[in-house]
Amino acid sequence: MANFLTATAVESRGDARFEAELDPQWSVGSRLHGGYLLAVLGRAAGLAAPDEHPHLTSITGTFLTPPEPAQAQVAVEVLRAGRGVTQLRAQLIQQGALRMEALISQGRLTEDDAWWSGLEPVKLPPEADCVLVPPAAPGAGFPVPLMDVIEQRLDPSSVGFTVGDPSRRGVIAGWQRLADGSAWDPLSVLVALDPVPPASYDLGVRGWAPTLSLTAYIRRLPGPGPLRVRLAATELAGDRMDEVAHAWDADGRLIAQATQLAAVRLPT
Amino acid sequence: MANFLTATAVESRGDARFEAELDPQWSVGSRLHGGYLLAVLGRAAGLAAPDEHPHLTSITGTFLTPPEPAQAQVAVEVLRAGRGVTQLRAQLIQQGALRMEALISQGRLTEDDAWWSGLEPVKLPPEADCVLVPPAAPGAGFPVPLMDVIEQRLDPSSVGFTVGDPSRRGVIAGWQRLADGSAWDPLSVLVALDPVPPASYDLGVRGWAPTLSLTAYIRRLPGPGPLRVRLAATELAGDRMDEVAHAWDADGRLIAQATQLAAVRLPT
Repeated sequence: MANFLTATAVESRGDARFEAELDPQWSVGSRLHGGYLLAVLGRAAGLAAPDEHPHLTSITGTFLTPPEPAQAQVAVEVLRAGRGVTQLRAQLIQQGALRMEALISQGRLTEDDAWWSGLEPVKLPPEADCVLVPPAAPGAGFPVPLMDVIEQRLDPSSVGFTVGDPSRRGVIAGWQRLADGSAWDPLSVLVALDPVPPASYDLGVRGWAPTLSLTAYIRRLPGPGPLRVRLAATELAGDRMDEVAHAWDADGRLIAQATQLAAVRLPT
Repeated sequence: MANFLTATAVESRGDARFEAELDPQWSVGSRLHGGYLLAVLGRAAGLAAPDEHPHLTSITGTFLTPPEPAQAQVAVEVLRAGRGVTQLRAQLIQQGALRMEALISQGRLTEDDAWWSGLEPVKLPPEADCVLVPPAAPGAGFPVPLMDVIEQRLDPSSVGFTVGDPSRRGVIAGWQRLADGSAWDPLSVLVALDPVPPASYDLGVRGWAPTLSLTAYIRRLPGPGPLRVRLAATELAGDRMDEVAHAWDADGRLIAQATQLAAVRLPT
């Protein structure tokens, strides 16, 4: 089982080109996980950015063709190197074809508290009272190898879908840890922000919800311990769903937020 | 006063290159408005996309160096032409330098109702009871030419900042119309999603809040009449603010949503 650092490692080939080996462990069904793929691009961007901007602060990735769990190339270009922020483009290439493209900003994060916050952390029962998501959930229809490397414990109010009784609030909330015990960082948080299952499960809509575009902002360095993550849909319409995710650390400080547009097959 | 169609017009130069004339009317202070600039990129993307995907459905723009109100070039590349979506990259170039880059998806929108919606439209007093934002607001410190082409009437609860008494909820909400009476469309909605003033004004933080990155999803075609727009900050921390915007049409149907990361100078 490859840990996050190894699974997202990239090796410089010079001239802002990197070589990666995409790891099938970080998959949902037969598809590599979107947050994991963004983290691979972010890893390369971090190496291409100047030392004074060591942290990924924002990323938007557009998903073109699903990458295979195999060797891939990452091409990075610095679009602007500013005083407070470096802005970059990163591309994931496999077999000569562009599979993903991302716009990224790098800066310097701290653990400082917010000057103002308008959002309370999601309320969750203690971790021990939440429901561990297994990599081979009965009735899921496909294995989720990701759940061997991410320990996710869902709020019991989010798991009604497993017994055919979803809450119909469009919310999936729970605790997340990296299974190898390592601490969260600005790149691994990208995995946490793209939770499995999608919010559509809590609306009684099963099946794939492939991400078309995902945008994440990392707001500060996480403290130790698990993350609390809340994923909520705003609207399902015309075969599209948006999902908004927030992640707080164990101390209840907002670490990151994300929004994604996904394809969804709605009942007719 | 150039209307929106004229102000965002682009002329093909062949090979997915376009010529634009950026219009100073669509400015805040001396800077061209972010939503307007995204609309210019979206206009070019719409011409480069296949006919079956006539509408912009998502866009993320990263703002590098502020463009001048002058001639500019737009370069578009189709990254993937799928059955339900075309994904593109668009770049705004001035004097040979990249000023903005965007990842865009095009599809086909309808006026159909949502299959499921989890968000109620923002409640606003009738338009006549809201406060028209003038292009030269007393005490603003700079003119906002945009307010001559966008008629924005703010909820009285959002305008406490004008008398030194902001609500400190981090919310700016109001009605918006195109001043020339034309109907909203998926491109002009990009202007509505990036309202002036920023949400920081309602927290007692004045001054510029330049956008670093803005992501918008257009969910359906707007019906006639004004839009209701709600802009809310989630958190201000480390000289960064996020703002989340939602726009509903007069019938209360969600038309579009956006999130942006902006720079902000916080009181020490």
